[in-house]
Amino acid sequence: MSSIKMFEKPLGMRDTFPQIFEKVETVRNTGRDFLCRRGFEFIKTPAVEYFDTVGKASAIADAHLFKLVDSQGNTLVLRPDMTTPIARVATSKLLKEMIPVRLAYFASVFRAQEAEGGRPAEFDQMGIELIGDNSVFADAEVIVTAMELLKHFGLVNFKMTIGHAGILNCILQDYTESVEQQNILRALLVQRNYVGFEEAVESFDLPKAKSDALLQFIEEAMNVKEIQDIEKYVRKNDALEYMQQLAKLLEIADLADYVAFDFTLSSHMSYYTGMLFEVFATGSGFLLGNGGRYDGLLEVFGSKVGATGFSIRVDRLLETLDGQAVERQETTVVLFEEEQFEEAIAKVKTLRATGKQATLQLRSSLVEEEAFLAHFTEVVIVGQEDVDGE
Amino acid sequence: MSSIKMFEKPLGMRDTFPQIFEKVETVRNTGRDFLCRRGFEFIKTPAVEYFDTVGKASAIADAHLFKLVDSQGNTLVLRPDMTTPIARVATSKLLKEMIPVRLAYFASVFRAQEAEGGRPAEFDQMGIELIGDNSVFADAEVIVTAMELLKHFGLVNFKMTIGHAGILNCILQDYTESVEQQNILRALLVQRNYVGFEEAVESFDLPKAKSDALLQFIEEAMNVKEIQDIEKYVRKNDALEYMQQLAKLLEIADLADYVAFDFTLSSHMSYYTGMLFEVFATGSGFLLGNGGRYDGLLEVFGSKVGATGFSIRVDRLLETLDGQAVERQETTVVLFEEEQFEEAIAKVKTLRATGKQATLQLRSSLVEEEAFLAHFTEVVIVGQEDVDGE
Repeated sequence: MSSIKMFEKPLGMRDTFPQIFEKVETVRNTGRDFLCRRGFEFIKTPAVEYFDTVGKASAIADAHLFKLVDSQGNTLVLRPDMTTPIARVATSKLLKEMIPVRLAYFASVFRAQEAEGGRPAEFDQMGIELIGDNSVFADAEVIVTAMELLKHFGLVNFKMTIGHAGILNCILQDYTESVEQQNILRALLVQRNYVGFEEAVESFDLPKAKSDALLQFIEEAMNVKEIQDIEKYVRKNDALEYMQQLAKLLEIADLADYVAFDFTLSSHMSYYTGMLFEVFATGSGFLLGNGGRYDGLLEVFGSKVGATGFSIRVDRLLETLDGQAVERQETTVVLFEEEQFEEAIAKVKTLRATGKQATLQLRSSLVEEEAFLAHFTEVVIVGQEDVDGE
Repeated sequence: MSSIKMFEKPLGMRDTFPQIFEKVETVRNTGRDFLCRRGFEFIKTPAVEYFDTVGKASAIADAHLFKLVDSQGNTLVLRPDMTTPIARVATSKLLKEMIPVRLAYFASVFRAQEAEGGRPAEFDQMGIELIGDNSVFADAEVIVTAMELLKHFGLVNFKMTIGHAGILNCILQDYTESVEQQNILRALLVQRNYVGFEEAVESFDLPKAKSDALLQFIEEAMNVKEIQDIEKYVRKNDALEYMQQLAKLLEIADLADYVAFDFTLSSHMSYYTGMLFEVFATGSGFLLGNGGRYDGLLEVFGSKVGATGFSIRVDRLLETLDGQAVERQETTVVLFEEEQFEEAIAKVKTLRATGKQATLQLRSSLVEEEAFLAHFTEVVIVGQEDVDGE
């Protein structure tokens, strides 16, 4: 026996007690209903996948993968995200026939933690994937759905930042002198480390024109009002035109106020190929969710169609929604003595038939009657008149 | 790269496609509502636990545990059942204060498979645990809840078999001559291998009185009408009295027709200490669920209270319910051309406001329009009159 205490859980693993469970459930049901009414269909994938398929294709660092070995000696992983398993599923015959296919999920994903404190090793994500539509309208649909879903939850103070992986890659390529330099700068942008970015640019000893352009780009590209403002940095302009069209669609959808363009936006999810976005709570700056276009990922699974999607971190959404009042549910307990069982089950039956929540409890089994009864809004004692609980 | 194909999943792992997902969801919601109204509160526990806590305490054979190792070198397991994690949770301060506490879950559990074919490695269980009430009324509540839940799902043809781990243990002890013999016989009963049981008894070379008693017990104890019929085999009679009282309570609850007593009933879940039961579909003989009293399990986690519960195999319930008609949901798709985006989002908004499920789709993104439209019950083309779909 090791030093693990019987009541302990692995690093980052959490229990969800009833009160929190009901909050998660409300988010799940509200979101599910909302997404279903928009034509998204829910699916579930296994918690365990092959490392060689989903493990390698996912963008999660190896150190954060939960790995295990099956009886055949294959390495397995606990799914680190849902986009990669859905990309696997979407290549199946059944779904290929429905293209463009709209899928949704509410599922836990797993990220191994190396130290105590804070970060969960298992957390719920709710999201959608729109697979097989390469148009800007599919990206607009995903963004509109994400925004309206958050509004539907009652969220008011949030913003979306939209970038484009292709445009950023193009700029990093053009103004650096090696892939190594590009990767260093990209990693710093993922961390939002702009000071580090400037220091790195200076340390590269680039021609002045290039380093000036990079530093100026970082200044200007973070909060772009008009897409054409960054035109001067970009060699090819297909992606810029695409982003202009997207901006117009979001304006038509009446979401322009919630959206800012940030062409320095970069994600640790390396599979994004086109537009990508992040949603965060204003004030706290809490990242609530993210998404984007990942046309390359399905190709890994042998399908050439493009895809776009988003996911919301349920725990962070709950924290952001917290403070909103939660109604206390009416709960009744029916207490009985041994010889009153027949009367007692008749009583709870009647209560439940009227839609009430009713618990049946043998009185003599209670150790601390007062503490137990405090959990109910109504106490009924069989054979007596109704007595009010706390 | 190994020989694993990109679309493959680990042994026994399954995807749940939309149609099945919705069936599971219906069972989940129906069951959740039913159990909540009876005062059971839902909780969730992590998918990953320490082997030294939940792994060892669970009754699942080592070969069926998914094991992994964390960064500290601790062995972890994917939860093989929900009763053991809930026993861990129930010893927490929060829940101790609420005793007797009624908990419920809908969760997937994991059992590693060694060969292709049939058995799932991850499957959903829905169940309850009633913790901290040692009375026969708590056992009756669990049984009544299990039976009424199945009826509530619309199930008609099912039966429950109830046994008692203590009575069977007592008989096996009294009529054999070693613990080894007891374990052999118990394992054969778990497999329902009565022929093997008889052969084993004969091979033990027991005194004739003992072997006769064992063989006669097997004959008589499998379908007991009156509990006192097996009185002659049992040394101590506390457990028999308990079972008589339970039978009376089930009669009062109007469930006697669904119930048979079988004192040969034995479970591979070795933590059951008192009454235990199985529910199966008559006709197919399909095991739908099981449960029982496990007073010892909480002691492992440092708490002395008793507990009783049951769980239902959701996949088997669905198979048994299959054939019951499922309504096809009304689904509308709104097709639009690029320049009609504004008109199109106004149209879906109107449709969704009336409670309709409506999908928005750019027409030019459709590769096989006919196949795509076949998935909808109504097709609306923006700028045209409504056109009926299939």
